[in-house]
Amino acid sequence: MVDKVLALCGGVGGAKLALGLNHCLSPDQLTILVNTADDFEHLGLHISPDIDTVMYTLAGINNGALGWGIEGETWHCLAALEVFGGETWFRLGDRDLATHLFRTSQLKQGASLTDITGLLCQGLGVETQILPMSDDCVRTMVATPTGEIAFQHYFVKAQCQPTVCDFHFVGIETARPNPLALALLNDPQLTGIIICPSNPYVSIDPILALDGFSDALKQAKAPVVAVSPIVGGAAIKGPTAKMMRELSIPTTPTAIVEHYQGLIDGFIFDNADHQYKVPLSDMHVALNMTNTVMKTLEDKILLAETALTFMNEISGQKSIDHKNM
Amino acid sequence: MVDKVLALCGGVGGAKLALGLNHCLSPDQLTILVNTADDFEHLGLHISPDIDTVMYTLAGINNGALGWGIEGETWHCLAALEVFGGETWFRLGDRDLATHLFRTSQLKQGASLTDITGLLCQGLGVETQILPMSDDCVRTMVATPTGEIAFQHYFVKAQCQPTVCDFHFVGIETARPNPLALALLNDPQLTGIIICPSNPYVSIDPILALDGFSDALKQAKAPVVAVSPIVGGAAIKGPTAKMMRELSIPTTPTAIVEHYQGLIDGFIFDNADHQYKVPLSDMHVALNMTNTVMKTLEDKILLAETALTFMNEISGQKSIDHKNM
Repeated sequence: MVDKVLALCGGVGGAKLALGLNHCLSPDQLTILVNTADDFEHLGLHISPDIDTVMYTLAGINNGALGWGIEGETWHCLAALEVFGGETWFRLGDRDLATHLFRTSQLKQGASLTDITGLLCQGLGVETQILPMSDDCVRTMVATPTGEIAFQHYFVKAQCQPTVCDFHFVGIETARPNPLALALLNDPQLTGIIICPSNPYVSIDPILALDGFSDALKQAKAPVVAVSPIVGGAAIKGPTAKMMRELSIPTTPTAIVEHYQGLIDGFIFDNADHQYKVPLSDMHVALNMTNTVMKTLEDKILLAETALTFMNEISGQKSIDHKNM
Repeated sequence: MVDKVLALCGGVGGAKLALGLNHCLSPDQLTILVNTADDFEHLGLHISPDIDTVMYTLAGINNGALGWGIEGETWHCLAALEVFGGETWFRLGDRDLATHLFRTSQLKQGASLTDITGLLCQGLGVETQILPMSDDCVRTMVATPTGEIAFQHYFVKAQCQPTVCDFHFVGIETARPNPLALALLNDPQLTGIIICPSNPYVSIDPILALDGFSDALKQAKAPVVAVSPIVGGAAIKGPTAKMMRELSIPTTPTAIVEHYQGLIDGFIFDNADHQYKVPLSDMHVALNMTNTVMKTLEDKILLAETALTFMNEISGQKSIDHKNM
């Protein structure tokens, strides 16, 4: 039986599984810890793209066609901004702007990103707890052959065109992990941790790199299950596979397990990657091969159910292991 | 013949005459110096209500029905902000927001309010120079029986309900007048200065109170003509008459001339106030009685023409006086 679950999540890809989990669990059972290393300041606004994507997705107002922003959005402000020669490469919709304005003004008044995210979720009717990975500032910089650029400049402005050499999380040395997430990792009611199929390098790594977070994850009694973001040598969404190639990492599920080695107890990968079953079976993680491509809501719920069941199976095994230790 | 004109202006009332002047003069002939003491920070945005009103009016996109903001405005952002319990008492339209976002981000990048206003005007196709009274921060505080409140809180949030005891311009001691306006006051090509029918206490006084501005105005060779904001004991728009009553100032054109005494050479007042012709004639200013109520564009142009002709007449007289001195 599932009690409490912590999901680690980035933007679109992760949000899909988060939505599935949200359908399978009650609000008090699920906590979603979201990457904030691709937050940025734009036009004086504090923008948290991954939090917003997860929040809008759970609220059922996400723009499915665009993959970001709000369904049925209007663009009057941006059109007017264009007239002034203002920066319009980051597409801010009129309704979406309210999120950023509210967040920015609340931050200026001294509220924490955690509390503000809570207020935003409350306004949108999202009862599940969505937590920023940290209330402190961490910013992903992308090293490219022509120099380092801020993540959103790489991701949105340059449309992931530059070759990636490395990543650098500015502020990671001093940023504290969200204390509510740390507390949950120690909570005896925690049944498991799910690493959503988000980009390991820019969405999950910043969370794992927070001071003490990986240690807390390793010490947690609950099992950690990762879902592969790589299917058939490609990523469903976003630049994960392109980044892997540029970093000379094979675009395979085994590379993902290697990346998370020592942290995860279970790994879910796609049927399309059945040829990796044998090499994966040597990697000391429990395996689950299933359909991981989430096109419909049903896909999302099915994968969430699979992950939860798998997590539970490992949990039983882990508690036996613990007893035998 | 009119060469260059400087108009001092607040929000709506003043903007009407500014529009009239804009029709009568070419862009290189007219400079509008606008009050910025009711600027404020709201939701992290720098808002300059009077500049925006003048700018939108000259661009022909002002919302005539509301008296502020942009014609055909939408309110999607504000509606979304309301869902979060954000502050919505200051009505920010979607297009209007672009102005504030652009201004705020440019200020953060170190641009001056003067330069930013220039860029905004350029975007809106306004060729006439609209200048903030200062690039430094001045903020009007309204003293009321229950304490001091910021101007926009008095004006918009409290809808001018509180009784006014006094005004206080925070920052006025150190704020420098716009150097372009000071230069124009010394420009031999300056034909005259027109004080628009704006609120003398909160729109014009902050400009006059800027260090050195009144002296520069007095020393200018060009005549200063004020247009009465009081017609038949009332103000056409805004709380001018209510303020005057609360400050125990008679709501008469003579009170306006007394207020500007020593600064103005000419005074234009409304036909409705013909009974003040005799007391006004003792006040050592040239007088012009005409229709000052500007309902139509024609009214605005007619009053502007009257003001310019009157200014020219005084100018001729003033230059004769100068020669005779």
